[in-house]
Parts: sequence; C-alpha cells; structure tokens
Amino acid sequence: MTDKVNLQDKLALFSDHWRPRIVGELNGHQVKLAKLKGEFVWHRHEHEDEMFLVLKGTLVIRMRDRAVTLQPGEMYIVPRDTEHQPVADDEVHVLLVEPAGTLNTGDVRDALTVDRPSTI
Amino acid sequence: MTDKVNLQDKLALFSDHWRPRIVGELNGHQVKLAKLKGEFVWHRHEHEDEMFLVLKGTLVIRMRDRAVTLQPGEMYIVPRDTEHQPVADDEVHVLLVEPAGTLNTGDVRDALTVDRPSTI
Repeated sequence: MTDKVNLQDKLALFSDHWRPRIVGELNGHQVKLAKLKGEFVWHRHEHEDEMFLVLKGTLVIRMRDRAVTLQPGEMYIVPRDTEHQPVADDEVHVLLVEPAGTLNTGDVRDALTVDRPSTI
Repeated sequence: MTDKVNLQDKLALFSDHWRPRIVGELNGHQVKLAKLKGEFVWHRHEHEDEMFLVLKGTLVIRMRDRAVTLQPGEMYIVPRDTEHQPVADDEVHVLLVEPAGTLNTGDVRDALTVDRPSTI
C-alpha cells in the first residue's frame, strides 16, 4: 500500500543540497526530490534519460552545446548520454524522475556522489 | 534535441477533459498533461504503475478499498493492477507519468478511451 506524497511536506524534511531523496517508485523508476545550490559536477548518465521539474527557484542545466533555464512549473528531460551540469545560483527545489539506481553524478565519482539515496 | 516544457503553456493549448496530451518521453515512459472534470470510468492497468501529480484543483482517486484526495503539489502512484476511478468535482489539472502506450481507460473500452494521445 502506498501513500500520497505532499511535495512541500517532504521538502521540509531535509535541507542539504545535491542529495536527492526518493519519494516514489513506479515501473522501475524513482521519483526524487532534491534541493540544489551552486554548481554540480559535469556528468552523464549513459543509459538513462532524466526528468527535471523545477518546483522553486531558477535552474540552469548546462550542456556542452546549449543550456536550458527552468523556472518553477517548467520541466526538461536530459537525454541519456548527454553531458550536463545543473547550476543553481540560488536554492532550487526540483522533482526528478529517472530509472531506479541512477547515480546522481552519473559516470563521475565525486564528493557529491550519493550511492544510496534514502527514501523519505 | 528536446525542448523545455512550460506546464502552464502546454495546458493553455487544450480545454477538453479526460484526453491526456504527451509532453515528454523518458526511458519508455511518457509524461502527460490532462484536464479532468467529473467521474472517470473505473479501470485498471494490469502491468503499469501510474503517477498522478496534481497541479490545480482537488482530485479524488477512488480505489475499491480506499480513496486518496490530492491537492496541488500532491502526488500519488496508483499501483499496477489496482482498480481506480479518478473523480474531479471541479476541473483538475494533472501531470501523469506512465509507460508509453498506457491506455487511459486501462482494461476498459469506453467512449472516453483515447487510443492515440497527441503530443503537444
């Protein structure tokens, strides 16, 4: 049995940046919430498309040939195997959908790598 | 190359109820937007979990043993093979994530069945 998820209630449970929390699972995918601030590491997910839906703030997703700027209520799907760097000048809250087990830093091992994101 | 999606801009492109539009695809899943009003048909998706994220209005998802009431900013994942009936007394806007090809009426063929949802 699953429960409904209130995104704001879940976001109130943590304050650290770049550490996604799992809030739901469907068909081998996970729905995650994260708070972002600053520049993340450049990385790619070889086999996984990754959906970003911004809930708060302004998120820039830099790619090698372009950049996308997302405001609240805007989403972008980073195609698999596309190098990208999320950048948040001010704090951003984001909902992510991606295959279960997708590593936040993709092909890069970094101090920011979260091997086992927790479920909240 | 994909583009970012502004959910409100996409929602402004249609006004009919119970006809989801595709706004994104990732890993064999589709992201859809829909406007709902009234009572939908009871149905189940045998093999597909289905995510509902409410953007506007109050959505009740009736199941045989319970019901879930979702306000804006709340999500619920209806587990596969679970009979359910979405109900919206007033208009609801919702973002859906489900496997590509998931039929809106699941195992039921109805006047509301949309065989080929359009991409907007």
